[in-house]
Amino acid sequence: MTKEEIQKQIFQAVETVKQTNPMVGSITNTVTINFVANAQLAVGGSAAMVYLPEEGEFLAKASGAIYINVGTLLPIYEQTLPHVAKVLHDTGKPWVLDPVAVGIGSMRTHLLRQFKDYKPHVIRGNASEIIALAGLWKLDGGAAISKVRGVDSTDSVIAAKTAAVSLAKWTGGAVAVSGKTDLITDGTVIAFSYGGSHFMPKITGAGCSLGGVIAVYLTAASPFIAALTGTAVYNLAGTRTEKKVDGPGSFQIKFLDELYKASAGEIANNPFEIEEV
Amino acid sequence: MTKEEIQKQIFQAVETVKQTNPMVGSITNTVTINFVANAQLAVGGSAAMVYLPEEGEFLAKASGAIYINVGTLLPIYEQTLPHVAKVLHDTGKPWVLDPVAVGIGSMRTHLLRQFKDYKPHVIRGNASEIIALAGLWKLDGGAAISKVRGVDSTDSVIAAKTAAVSLAKWTGGAVAVSGKTDLITDGTVIAFSYGGSHFMPKITGAGCSLGGVIAVYLTAASPFIAALTGTAVYNLAGTRTEKKVDGPGSFQIKFLDELYKASAGEIANNPFEIEEV
Amino acid sequence: MTKEEIQKQIFQAVETVKQTNPMVGSITNTVTINFVANAQLAVGGSAAMVYLPEEGEFLAKASGAIYINVGTLLPIYEQTLPHVAKVLHDTGKPWVLDPVAVGIGSMRTHLLRQFKDYKPHVIRGNASEIIALAGLWKLDGGAAISKVRGVDSTDSVIAAKTAAVSLAKWTGGAVAVSGKTDLITDGTVIAFSYGGSHFMPKITGAGCSLGGVIAVYLTAASPFIAALTGTAVYNLAGTRTEKKVDGPGSFQIKFLDELYKASAGEIANNPFEIEEV
Repeated sequence: MTKEEIQKQIFQAVETVKQTNPMVGSITNTVTINFVANAQLAVGGSAAMVYLPEEGEFLAKASGAIYINVGTLLPIYEQTLPHVAKVLHDTGKPWVLDPVAVGIGSMRTHLLRQFKDYKPHVIRGNASEIIALAGLWKLDGGAAISKVRGVDSTDSVIAAKTAAVSLAKWTGGAVAVSGKTDLITDGTVIAFSYGGSHFMPKITGAGCSLGGVIAVYLTAASPFIAALTGTAVYNLAGTRTEKKVDGPGSFQIKFLDELYKASAGEIANNPFEIEEV
Repeated sequence: MTKEEIQKQIFQAVETVKQTNPMVGSITNTVTINFVANAQLAVGGSAAMVYLPEEGEFLAKASGAIYINVGTLLPIYEQTLPHVAKVLHDTGKPWVLDPVAVGIGSMRTHLLRQFKDYKPHVIRGNASEIIALAGLWKLDGGAAISKVRGVDSTDSVIAAKTAAVSLAKWTGGAVAVSGKTDLITDGTVIAFSYGGSHFMPKITGAGCSLGGVIAVYLTAASPFIAALTGTAVYNLAGTRTEKKVDGPGSFQIKFLDELYKASAGEIANNPFEIEEV
Repeated sequence: MTKEEIQKQIFQAVETVKQTNPMVGSITNTVTINFVANAQLAVGGSAAMVYLPEEGEFLAKASGAIYINVGTLLPIYEQTLPHVAKVLHDTGKPWVLDPVAVGIGSMRTHLLRQFKDYKPHVIRGNASEIIALAGLWKLDGGAAISKVRGVDSTDSVIAAKTAAVSLAKWTGGAVAVSGKTDLITDGTVIAFSYGGSHFMPKITGAGCSLGGVIAVYLTAASPFIAALTGTAVYNLAGTRTEKKVDGPGSFQIKFLDELYKASAGEIANNPFEIEEV
């Protein structure tokens, strides 16, 4: 794909979402659940969140795509997450996995290990999470010892390149590594997306809500294009918002405004570069 | 009641709430729980949220009214919700039911079916939810097959008129159907409330928080007046906020400001019409 | 300690946090969980929230300090909270307890009673909560009957003075009583901190997020200094924010901006007085 072809597909993904208002179900953490829903609505999607196995199955079937974030595990997740991931896999419904805080606790490890077979269409995380997940799945570039620090990354995006590529090759989907410059790969091509703001790590949920927004675009595009489109609108909105605010509270709010206002053409034209793996 | 008598009662409900700062307990979903609490505080109420059966019972007895929203069911709700609804019914304490996403999952269906006997004083929902609840309760105007799409409505408010009237007649309370024009009925009179904003469906929680605010007014007014007062302040604040913002993030925030600033006289004068059933 | 020595330590606590970005884990309520995290980030900390016993233990060991808020109890808390409190006590890791709504329900009472032996380094609450907790722990100044009204206080800060002092003497840490004027004590000295805003009780989470922020400072200062530093930045940010907004929605957002912008010198110079017990 040329850069122009990619831009055309980004444009198309954004337009389709704005026109079809696709339903995207989520099972996500309670810290940023509101921000995830509002970000999904801001880009043109429709949001619904659940906790129970049966309701997750319902949403998996009724939604165009699903977002699963393991941030704040509840006891019921031991049943809900494998069940819903299996339904997604068996029905071929696209989904995004956000392996938040991989390495904390045995239930999290056990759940994330099971997801290997259910092959999420997009995996989104910071560099440390991507490296740790590849390690957990025994893929190239993974580390046996997680360097995840709570929800923060202690690794640079480029250090996660091999892990991202091997995860994408395994799933046949795409991987998005969030950081100062974002890396998106489908296992054969790597895109670097530019923009964003120094305020993004100063608010909670910039990463989670990006995962939720990628799931929205996943209803209208390939995993690679969906991950790149979500990342592009985040970088664009981040850059624009930073110019208008002087603190993280206002950033969080105006950022939603900019997500809403960004046009398909502007998102397609957000700076990015591509290279072969 | 004449329109003037209704306006006088709306004025009185708003004033009483501002003066008495009534406590209103809620059992509600985790997506919009913060927005519900902040909206209840903005209009002059006091908020408290719980999950456990015994704590729900405590709040049901200690509060002036209760708000129950079945948005994100947790396993414990199987015990909490019927127990609290029974306490509310047995003690005659007024409460608002928000039958979010009725039709998704068997626990939700089972819980909502049980609520028929506990007769919520106000039922608030979008048109599809009201039609589906009437169907679940086998009342006139209900549909056997829910057209609820996650948390969105696919039906128009006016299509829910018969269902709303039959639900109100069954409970002896009031029903509020939220949409472009809002319909409120006590089974004998129908009020249409005007205003609002195109941003309201672009944020999560406009409907939930209205349910919570109606519960606040329910401490100081009849179900019909409480539902109409809550709807009126939402329409007024929505109209005012839309003029000040250019995106849904700012809308959400300034909307709380406008809820806070709206006076009893302004709320009573928000446009509405009444007709006999 | 002289006032100047205290100010020097406040300055140092703020600077250390801004430079080290300390990780602080929380087990807290779902109503204000997002606001707690964003406030912790705004002052320079890093946030992570969990529900499960094992994950709480992990965070207790990996964090510089822990924040425990009993606002919205879930069934799993019966296991999580005593387990994590024991780990904190056994490892000497500092933690903040927010005894929200003490007196509501038997699980809450049972959990809070157990915490007596685990001696939280800082206890933060409104006057009624502090009095009720002292009563529950059978300490001087406590009342057998809780006057807690949901999450609100019905007592004045000064009425909680004896209870605050006896709680601080028992734990060997500090107690912060939030109100119009805030009272902080380590059992031998009392500080009164001035500032804040009439909007603070009009938003949900002003108290919870203060507890979370005190936990951030607890990674870099004694319990008394951490409690005073957190209270000071809240009073400073509250005063500044009130001048810029006309409603509680905007207050909540701009308040986070002011938390972020407040310098160590400004926080150290926020008005306070000290007196011997």
